[in-house]
Parts: sequence; structure tokens; C-alpha cells
Amino acid sequence: MPEAAAEEDDIIGILSGMGPYAGLDLAQKIHRHTAARTDQEHLSVALLSYPGWIPDRSTYLFDHTKPNPTPALAKIARRLEAAGATVVGTPCNTAHCSPIFDALTERLSDAGSQVHLVHMIEETARHLRRAHPGIERVGVLSSLAVYRLSLYQDVLEAAGFDVVRPDEKTQREVVDAVIFDETYGIKAQSDPVTDRARRDLLDAAADLKENGAEAVILGCTEFPLALPERDAHGLPLIDPTRVLARALIRAGAPDQLAPPIRPQPPLASN
Amino acid sequence: MPEAAAEEDDIIGILSGMGPYAGLDLAQKIHRHTAARTDQEHLSVALLSYPGWIPDRSTYLFDHTKPNPTPALAKIARRLEAAGATVVGTPCNTAHCSPIFDALTERLSDAGSQVHLVHMIEETARHLRRAHPGIERVGVLSSLAVYRLSLYQDVLEAAGFDVVRPDEKTQREVVDAVIFDETYGIKAQSDPVTDRARRDLLDAAADLKENGAEAVILGCTEFPLALPERDAHGLPLIDPTRVLARALIRAGAPDQLAPPIRPQPPLASN
Repeated sequence: MPEAAAEEDDIIGILSGMGPYAGLDLAQKIHRHTAARTDQEHLSVALLSYPGWIPDRSTYLFDHTKPNPTPALAKIARRLEAAGATVVGTPCNTAHCSPIFDALTERLSDAGSQVHLVHMIEETARHLRRAHPGIERVGVLSSLAVYRLSLYQDVLEAAGFDVVRPDEKTQREVVDAVIFDETYGIKAQSDPVTDRARRDLLDAAADLKENGAEAVILGCTEFPLALPERDAHGLPLIDPTRVLARALIRAGAPDQLAPPIRPQPPLASN
Repeated sequence: MPEAAAEEDDIIGILSGMGPYAGLDLAQKIHRHTAARTDQEHLSVALLSYPGWIPDRSTYLFDHTKPNPTPALAKIARRLEAAGATVVGTPCNTAHCSPIFDALTERLSDAGSQVHLVHMIEETARHLRRAHPGIERVGVLSSLAVYRLSLYQDVLEAAGFDVVRPDEKTQREVVDAVIFDETYGIKAQSDPVTDRARRDLLDAAADLKENGAEAVILGCTEFPLALPERDAHGLPLIDPTRVLARALIRAGAPDQLAPPIRPQPPLASN
């Protein structure tokens, strides 16, 4: 066991608020994947969840005349840095689309920020190669913005994977609605999620399997709240928030990365 | 529904790290008790969990030659303020003992801090009067430090309640061990907690009932992880973290305080 962390040790920053529960889920997964037996051995985590500051990512990505979330994200990232964060992750897939993520890293760099912003989607591609070496064809469930901007598709194809996705109609009417529907969507009801959200997501994963997927990425941070299990229909379910948690520990405190463990039911589902 | 929060709205700060899961539990309860239907309507929360900075509270309270956690707590509170927090709570009962809490408020005041530090134990006494008006005799389960320094006893008696506590031997050998035992204690195993921790706590609550308690305060932030239910042995279980969550919302964004809801199983028990 390592000694208790000193003040100069790395602090892991969580740039949160999209939605608020995804930030708590990431923080919980960081603690869960840390080798620690006492309070003092746990890693330092700064979580800033300022949802009211951050305009909707998808709305902006579909229409650049709408409010741009990037300035708020940069401002929160700078506050994380002021709080001591050296390595930062953001548990929001849509925020990794290049019109936001690249603009964010540029803004931070221009402002002289020293923070290391970990890229959740690139880490997910690395994780697939490392933990599932036999897999070639990967299914992706995501928000409509991430789908249309081919976020996972581009990163995964660059890493040598084939990508399977829902058809556009299913993506729009079923998968996106699981996130955003005002009645049964996870953003409206995440605590607990609705049966409808869970069922629709399982059905969408079954469709991907029929189209040859050998694993399914839950490419929206809300999805693992509805599907906390390790597999569905015999395929591994990949939780990028879990991958990000481990990547942040690896970046900030590699000696304290716990051996891989089974994913657990999420904090918001009980 | 209120409008999305503007940048100048209050930010709720969580001074955390004692233990790390208690901070996540408080953050989750703040979200749970907030009236919000979209990401943007959720309250801004800054959570700084720097466990390695903060020497053990009980150790210091029993022996003032040991490292004092107060300077680290003040430093973290100042960083919360720099991150924008206007109202701050700390989900650690032991940190509310006056040798720490009073020294912390004095330090912050000397440093010119404007932050409003909410007192979890005083809020718990207020909650009892408001939500359980018939109750006169209150049982308290806590850490040994909180027990010996009569933290709840003093605050509750000042508010006109009778207080029932375990005898010193049970407090030391059973209740304190539920927190600190290196094998089955909640600090060593909080995710999930052990059956032993849960059983010992239920037995201690039964003893308090036999001695006339009409409600039982779970006066250690780890306890609700083991006993998430609303009642035990027919007595209401009072969760000060839940009370603190509602007090922080009331202080920072009173219009968004949701109606009281049943307590839920904790984030770490699933």
C-alpha cells in the first residue's frame, strides 16, 4: 500500500455537469478502481459540476449559431486547475466531438493551461485492443450528435476496427430518445432510469449483434446508468466512463491502479 | 421549473475526503433533492475530495499533539471558494467537533472568507423538530470521538431533546469498529459494506430503542451506507447527510428544494 498522498501529488479533475450524475458515476468509478484501504490512501479528486453554465452540446453541434458550450467548459477546466487538478477527464461523449473538444484544448493551451486533458474515446479504442484482443467489429450506441459526427467511428476505424451502428431512423427515434425523451429519457429520469429506457437500449444492442458486432460501446455517459451489466446478448458492454476512470488513475497515480474488476450497478439505479 | 442557472448563481461546495464516498453520497443527495428536469436546471456543485491532505480527525481529537486536520480543511475550503462556492457543507460528523469546526470557521473568517459553512449537526436538530415534532428522546450512533466529545448530545440537549447513547464499551467495541475495523469496517469496505457492519449497527439501534429512543441518528456519514432504509425496529433513522443536502439547497437555491422524499439505498451499496 502506498503512503498517504502528499499535497504535491496529482489531483484528478472531473469536468462535469453534462449530466450531473455522469460526473458522480465517474468519481465513484475512480474510487472503485483505486487500491486504497484508508481514507488517506484514496486519490484526490476535484469535481466541478456546473450544469447551468454549459449550453447543450448536441444543440450547438447541429447548429453553430446556437450557444457554444466551449467557453464555459474552458472556464470550468481553469477552475479545476486552480483547485489543483493536473489531469482532467470529462464524462460526456458529445463534448469529445472535435468542434468542442479541439476548440477546448486550443483555448486551454492559449490560456497557458498545463492540465492534461484525457480523451475518453481514444482511451476506449486503446482499451478494446488491450482487453479484447480478438474483437474486430464493434457496435456503438451514442447520442445523435456523436452518431452524425462519427466520433466513435472515426477513432475506432483509425485504430483498425470495423464499426456497426444503428440505422439513422433507429438512432433518431429509439437510441437518442433513450437519452432525451422528456418522459422516459435518462436525462429526465436517471434516478432510477425507466424500464422503457433500459429495454430500448437492450433492443438496440441486439440489433447491433445481428449486424455482426462483437462488443457494444455504451457511447453516452448516461447509458451505463441503464445497462450496468458486463455483457448483453453474450457481447461485452464497454463503459467508456469506466475506461476513463482507469485512464485518469493511470495518468495521475499509476501505482494505485487496482486490478480490473467487474463493472457494478450504477450509483443512480438503486 | 426555474430557468437554467446563470453564472452568478450560488454554487454549493462539498468539503470532502473524510471518507471519499461520503462526499459522493452528499452530492448524489443534493441532486436527488433538487427540482430539475434537465441537465441545465441542476444546481452547481463543487466537490473537492483531498483525503491524503487531511489527517485523521479522531486521532487529533484524542491527542492534540497529533497532526491537526484544520489547516488542510481551511485550505480546501478556500479552494472551494476560489472555484465559486458560496455555501459549503462537509459530510463528516467528526469534523464538526468544536476543536476542529470552530477552529476552521475562525481560520476562514481570519482569511476574509465569505463562504457560508452550514453546520450539519445543528441542521439535524432543526430537522428533528420540524419533521418529527412528537419526538423527545433521540438515540445517537456515532464515532467514538463524536461520542466522547458529546457533539450530538450537546447540540440536541440545547435544542430540548433527551439523548440516548450506547454504553462506552459497546460504543468502543461495536459501534466504532463498524467504522474503523480493518477487516469489516466501512472505511475498509464501503463498496459494498460488509454484512457484519450492517448487523452490528442494527443491533446497536435495537439497544437504543430498548433504552427509550424514539428516533436514531446515524451520526457518522458512513452509517447510511450500511443502513439506507427509512426506519429500523419501527424507529425513524435520521441521515444527517440527507439533512445537510437539503439544508445546502435551502441555503443556495431555496426555489429548487424538492418535496421531501424517501431516503434511497446509497451509491456504494449496490
